[in-house]
Amino acid sequence: MVQYPVHLDTTFAALSDGTRRGILERLGRERASISDLAARFGMTLTGIKKHVRILEDAKLVTTEKVGRVRTCSLGPRRLEDERVWIAKYQQMLEERYDRLDEFLRRTQQERTDS
Amino acid sequence: MVQYPVHLDTTFAALSDGTRRGILERLGRERASISDLAARFGMTLTGIKKHVRILEDAKLVTTEKVGRVRTCSLGPRRLEDERVWIAKYQQMLEERYDRLDEFLRRTQQERTDS
Repeated sequence: MVQYPVHLDTTFAALSDGTRRGILERLGRERASISDLAARFGMTLTGIKKHVRILEDAKLVTTEKVGRVRTCSLGPRRLEDERVWIAKYQQMLEERYDRLDEFLRRTQQERTDS
Repeated sequence: MVQYPVHLDTTFAALSDGTRRGILERLGRERASISDLAARFGMTLTGIKKHVRILEDAKLVTTEKVGRVRTCSLGPRRLEDERVWIAKYQQMLEERYDRLDEFLRRTQQERTDS
């Protein structure tokens, strides 16, 4: 049913943490430095850096260091393949329920007819 | 912007593996035993059981043991909260690009006017 882009493993794993989802939402509004993010999420610089590294590996975030400040912004991936995977999965479920409905309707009809 | 249902951590983590996504697609078509799944994915029973346990913990799969056969079917969760999180995130990105477009258009206009 669905192709398997290899990067779905990495992006879904990156999304499996509330702080990382929060960082994406924050960067969706505007760029932020590692220190900004650490203050915003009440974490150490080291803790935030680990999360940012995982988001970078998933190409959801890019970072740029100018002087001593590392600034984070959103990366090239926009979760489009992830959206499509979930949409196709839900569509498959819906078609399955439709078939079940049809089966139950026919069974009911046959009972009424007999 | 977005509420944080705690279970998003668990479901996104469950989706971060190609075999587990494959199991969901397979069960979306019909129920299957652990042995069916092991044969389908060329894995050991132990390997498949580990994946099924993670999907069960995420409430994406339920299992029922009758005699010696454990049958797997889809669980109560349908990835709706996950779909909504991604949709809201993409909507935020789109609005951000719209604002950027508007800013560039105005800047261009001001240059033309002056």
